This record gives sequence, C-alpha cells and structure tokens, in this order.
Amino acid sequence: MATTSNGSRRRFLQRAATIGATIGGVGVAREALAQQNLALTVPPWSTTPGMPLSEGSYGKPSPFEKNVLRHGRKDYRMPGSGSIMTPLGNLRGTITPNGLFFERSHGGVPEIDPAQHQLVVHGLVRQPLMFTMEDIVRLPSVSRIHFLECSGNTSQGWTARPPSVQLSHGLLSSCEWTGVMLSTVLDEAGLASNASWIIAEGADAAGLNRSVPIGKCLEDAMLVFAQNGEALRPENGYPLRLFLPGWEGNMSIKWLRRIRVTNQPAMTRWETSGYTESMPDGTARQFTFVMEAKSVITHPAPENPVRTRGFVEIGGIAWSGNGRIKRVDVSTDGGRNWRQAEIQEPVLNRALVRFRLPWQWQGEQTIILSRAIDETGYVQPTHSQLVAVRGTGNRYHYNAIQPWQIGSDGKVTNVHA
Amino acid sequence: MATTSNGSRRRFLQRAATIGATIGGVGVAREALAQQNLALTVPPWSTTPGMPLSEGSYGKPSPFEKNVLRHGRKDYRMPGSGSIMTPLGNLRGTITPNGLFFERSHGGVPEIDPAQHQLVVHGLVRQPLMFTMEDIVRLPSVSRIHFLECSGNTSQGWTARPPSVQLSHGLLSSCEWTGVMLSTVLDEAGLASNASWIIAEGADAAGLNRSVPIGKCLEDAMLVFAQNGEALRPENGYPLRLFLPGWEGNMSIKWLRRIRVTNQPAMTRWETSGYTESMPDGTARQFTFVMEAKSVITHPAPENPVRTRGFVEIGGIAWSGNGRIKRVDVSTDGGRNWRQAEIQEPVLNRALVRFRLPWQWQGEQTIILSRAIDETGYVQPTHSQLVAVRGTGNRYHYNAIQPWQIGSDGKVTNVHA
Repeated sequence: MATTSNGSRRRFLQRAATIGATIGGVGVAREALAQQNLALTVPPWSTTPGMPLSEGSYGKPSPFEKNVLRHGRKDYRMPGSGSIMTPLGNLRGTITPNGLFFERSHGGVPEIDPAQHQLVVHGLVRQPLMFTMEDIVRLPSVSRIHFLECSGNTSQGWTARPPSVQLSHGLLSSCEWTGVMLSTVLDEAGLASNASWIIAEGADAAGLNRSVPIGKCLEDAMLVFAQNGEALRPENGYPLRLFLPGWEGNMSIKWLRRIRVTNQPAMTRWETSGYTESMPDGTARQFTFVMEAKSVITHPAPENPVRTRGFVEIGGIAWSGNGRIKRVDVSTDGGRNWRQAEIQEPVLNRALVRFRLPWQWQGEQTIILSRAIDETGYVQPTHSQLVAVRGTGNRYHYNAIQPWQIGSDGKVTNVHA
Repeated sequence: MATTSNGSRRRFLQRAATIGATIGGVGVAREALAQQNLALTVPPWSTTPGMPLSEGSYGKPSPFEKNVLRHGRKDYRMPGSGSIMTPLGNLRGTITPNGLFFERSHGGVPEIDPAQHQLVVHGLVRQPLMFTMEDIVRLPSVSRIHFLECSGNTSQGWTARPPSVQLSHGLLSSCEWTGVMLSTVLDEAGLASNASWIIAEGADAAGLNRSVPIGKCLEDAMLVFAQNGEALRPENGYPLRLFLPGWEGNMSIKWLRRIRVTNQPAMTRWETSGYTESMPDGTARQFTFVMEAKSVITHPAPENPVRTRGFVEIGGIAWSGNGRIKRVDVSTDGGRNWRQAEIQEPVLNRALVRFRLPWQWQGEQTIILSRAIDETGYVQPTHSQLVAVRGTGNRYHYNAIQPWQIGSDGKVTNVHA
C-alpha cells in the first residue's frame, strides 16, 4: 500500500476510514488505562539487561514460539519415506523460513559431505562432465524466489477434511533459491541433436529419479545450492538439488548426483507406480508436471479463529505453476458473491503472492473461500468441478477452492468435500 | 537470465560460449573418470536409509556448515550493549536467513512474553491508544522485502582494514518484513495539526528511543511482527519493532512499547551523545537518517579466494536507502576502467540487489571494486572523496567503494583506506 501518489493515498484514507469505524474500540476504551499504564507499570524485561550476544552464534526463534513447528508427519512403506508440513497458519508474508520448510523424502535424509559429492552429466552429449561442488559454485549463478509444492499437497481434499491449513496445505513452501541455470551446464556438455529428455537421479538411498523434458531444462531449471541465502538444508537436498519452478516437488530431485541426457523418458518407478493419477475411465494421467493455480485463506483458518466481531482482514496465499497470479477473488457468503482481493507486489513468476480483503463479521455463521486466477486465464476450480473431471481415485494435483466455515462462535472448520 | 526471448537467448549463448571456452577444463579432462565413477563408486549415503523426519521439528543447517555463523562480536560499555555480524561471504542471493541476521543491541536481548507486551500511542493525537499483540495482528498488514543496515556498518573503513567481508560489511542483513503500516495506527489515533515528529521507545533495559519525522512515519514506516514469514527473532525485536525502510538501523526501534507524537525531536541521548558525526570543522552532523547507496563484492572476497585461473564470476550486493539501485559498475584494474554489471530482477525499493560480472583472471595481481548508483543519480563515493568531505573523526555512515586486492596466489585482501 503506497501512500505517496494521490490515488493510492486516497484509497488508503478511504480504507483507513472504514477500519477506523470498526477497530476503534480496540484503543479508545482504554484511553485512561493507557496513560495509567505508562506511568505505573514497567515490565520486568525493561529493568535488567537482557541476554548478551554470542560470538559464533546461529539464532533461534523466541521460546514463546516453541509450538510453531512442522507437524503432520506421515510415514510410507519404504524406510525413511515420509513427509512433514509447513505451519502455514502461523506464517505471514511469502517467504518460508528454512527451519519450517516442508519435507518429503523417499529414503530418509542423507548426510552428504559436500567435499565428496559429485554431479555427473552424461548420455546424449558431446562430452560427459563431472562436477565437484567447488566446480558448481564457480559457475554463473542466479537467485530467484519460487514456491515448491508436493504433488500430493492437499491430497486429502479428494475425500476428507484435514482440521487445519497446516495439515491440509502444508506441503507447500517458498524461498529464494540460488544456483546455476541447468542450461549453462547442458550447453557446456553440448546436447546431441536428438536430446529430448533428461533423467535426473538423487544420491539418497531411494535413488529417486525422474524424467524431465529438455524444454523445461533449457527454460528455467536450476541446479540449486542455496536457499534464503544460506546453503541448502539437509532435508532440502544439501549440497545440490535440481529445481524446476512450478512443477511438482518430487521432480526437483534432491541430493542430485546424475543427469543423463536421453531421447525418451525412462519410465522410472517414480513415474509409473507413483506420481500418476487413476482417472474415472480406467486410464492414468502421467507426466502431470505443472502445479496448477491454487489459493488458500490462512487468516482466518482453523488455527486462526475470529476472536471478535467487527473488522477482520481476510488474508491468504495464491500461486500458479504456470506463471504469475493475475487475480484472487474472495467470497464471504459461501460462494454466492465474490469480491476481488488486493494482491501484494511484487507479483513474481511461479511464486507465492499474498492477498488481502477487509471484511466485517457480525457473528453470523458463514463460509469463506478464495479463488485464484493466473495469467493464462486458468481459474481455480471448485471441488465438484475437479471431481467431475478426475474422479476421486487418485492422490495428486488436487487444487480445488478451499471452503472454511466460520461458526457463530468464531471457530473455523474445514467443510471441504 | 531468461532464455525464452530471442534477444536474451542470444545473449545467453554468447555468454555460455565465453564460459565454455574457459571453464571447459573442469569437466572434459575427467571424461573417463566420470564414466568409471558412475560404474564403480557408490557413496555411503546412497546405500542406507537416511535420517527420518521428525514430528514437531524446526530444521537446522547441515553439520558441514557449522562454521557459517555470526562472528565479530563487539562489546560496548553498557551491560548487554554489543553487535555481531552476518557472514555475508558465505551467503548468496538477497535474503538473509533469520538465524544469521546481524545483531546490535544496547541493553541485551530481552525475553518478552507477547501476551504481556503492549504498545501505547499517545501525545499529539485525538485519542491515545493502547494495543496488545492480539490487537496489532488483527490490523491490515503488508509484507515487504527491505535491507536493514546499522549506521556503524563498515565504520572501520574510516581508518582500518577489516580482514573479511563479514567483519567489514556484516552489520547488514535483509528479509521480508510483515507488519502494520504505522500510518494505519496514527490515522486511528488521529494526528493533531501540529504533529511533526514521533518519539519511539523500546522495552529493552536501554530504553532506546529515537525521534522520527512524521513524513517518514506516514510514507513507509511499519510496525513489524514477522520476518521471513515467522515471528520476529528475539534479537530483532520480538514481538514488535518499528521498521523504517532505508534508514539507519538503530531508529527501527526494537521491542517497541511506546510512540509519542510531538512537534519537535526529543534530542535523546541516542541522537546527541551517539549516532551523530563529528565533522572536520568542529560541527556535528545530526539526524543523518538515510543509509546512502553502497555496494560490496562478496565473491571473490577474503573468505572466497580465487582458486584457479580462467573464468571467475564477480558477484556482490548493492543497496540504497534512497530507493532502487539503478546500476552497478565493476572495475578489475584498480578503478581505471569500469564495466556495467548485470543486476538481478526484481530490483525492489530499498532492498538488496545482486550484481554479477563475468571475468577472466590470468594470475595477475590486481584490485577489484564495485560502485553503486541509485535511482536518484547518487554515485557511491571513493574513500578519498568521502574523507575529503567528512574527515575521519566519526564512526557512522561510511559508504565508500570497497577495494579487494587479488594476489598472484588468488588470495584476497582488504586494501581499504
């Protein structure tokens, strides 16, 4: 909200007037108290020196935030295969702090010595290459803010109602990624004229490998070694991962050790037995790479009930694997009427955007929803629209509108599906 | 570096060709080894499941990154007064992870219970207000990426040569800040017609307080409660701080408890005995709020020597408290010739930008420098230009061009001042 130009200043004043009319009670009733408080009470932390700074320190959250953690661990059949979710209901803004980034691994988190790690690039290339980490970080690099979402994020939406935004949408995080464009390395290796796919393989015990069309590799794929400024976290692929902006998370191969250039997909177990979708007609969708436009309201949400009547700012996040978010609509009456939310600048390509809409809540039971529209014109579908096309027989790429019911007591519940 | 449009694709290919000519040796000589390696050696972490995920976890960096920490602790005369610096030489991108954000406090870091914390707004207002943290987070909020720099950052540049980019420039960090526009709260309180300053006061033992002109308060000042998505870290003002984009760090009052609206500055001890600058003619500069345009090369730097001849990407950061960075020039011959560096999108207001320039190093001893120019046309000065105007009798607002000398062995040393 800029307040320098005349137009935006006018808009601000109009908005502030509205807010003032409704949140005024917060402060006005306490006028006398405020004066008294200033004169009489001094909190204990103002009377004695606080903790000194530590030489050689790495900071931690306040002890009062000890419950803001990754929750919702799921274990799958293979040893070390599991996932755990970002507490979206506790976060604000568009960056996920590294300590709260969601995790999904298929063979546990390997502890890799970067001095021993190597990346091999071979197959349909003029010259196979091998890189140490020291080689990689010498190459020209870029830094870009992108979301990362598991293809199984919100998978319970097909049939169930997870009780929080963390447990429903928490296989989603966002940060600033730094690394080398994959195109730089492929250009150095020299692609053969029939090169049309790569097979990327991780160094974890699962040896997770996926086929990626060469077009994506040359467009915006990155070999990432840093997130939010510092080295990748172990659970995010330390010391090196592939990163495919906007595509399902498992393809952004972590602990990357090998890229083989080919002229066809490898049909690995990860793209045949898993990460494919059973359709109602008995066929399967395969290579459904892109995470399509999606949004969710995080305030209010089950973790963030409405505490008082009057002014409520509805806020949330929207994203699209196909580009920039163009618009987010919000309904506060179960989907009958929609209003356009304010979306926050900068709106980046394949990145989270925050949206916000001021609302007056007078204690009525109602349902609030958000609907993302991206720059391709794609509109986030309703649950019934999605199910009509894809049925309920699969676990991936569920991106329907999320309805939250506000009770007359302000409590928020998932009324999905 | 986009590779989709024809122009940028052409530029990429030209650049890649240059790089290929020089970094080719990295991979080509190891061709046979690469094939052999794939067939024969399997690293230990690929043969056994890694660490499982933890329910209720907050992540940590890899043990191999244990030396990437805040260093350079300084203690001042008051108990708990000190500073410690961000390891800029180890970071990439434009976001500082919260655990490595620089610290500067004047009475130690208080441990504040957010349920007990209050903000009072009083003075020349229609109605004094008091807010709990629950009140604050209910208000309309925004999220913005901005740098934060201590006015004493690079203060040793006046007379000395700190041996690393961390120890010279590390009182500088950057993140995405989330909070309420201060204008929203002041509008709610109702400014008197003669309101022209605020006095902001912290709840730490130092009771740090500073005077801020009302124009800045209404333009872009924020009441911040989150950084990089999560709650403020204790050393960054948990649970609430003032944030003044582009202005010297100490004015962005941490642990904010009080805002008094006035018609003149308070002339607190923090703006008389400290945070003023002795000039050569015996006068003092006071209220030197803005951190003017500045840049530093982080790769190579003393922490990041040049390891091999041939291709080197020179990279660093630039910023201006007066707006956007317009251009960064780099010299690789001690300042005789300058080339324009590539600067990375998005270029945000009062935020760090990354710049990069490809370079060929053939083992010669030389000096590399960077020079930032912001959208106001301001050009980062040389050391001698700065000293000619301000002398060497003060500790603040040193923003001269930083020269790094590359030795014939690739080692990098500070040849400042």
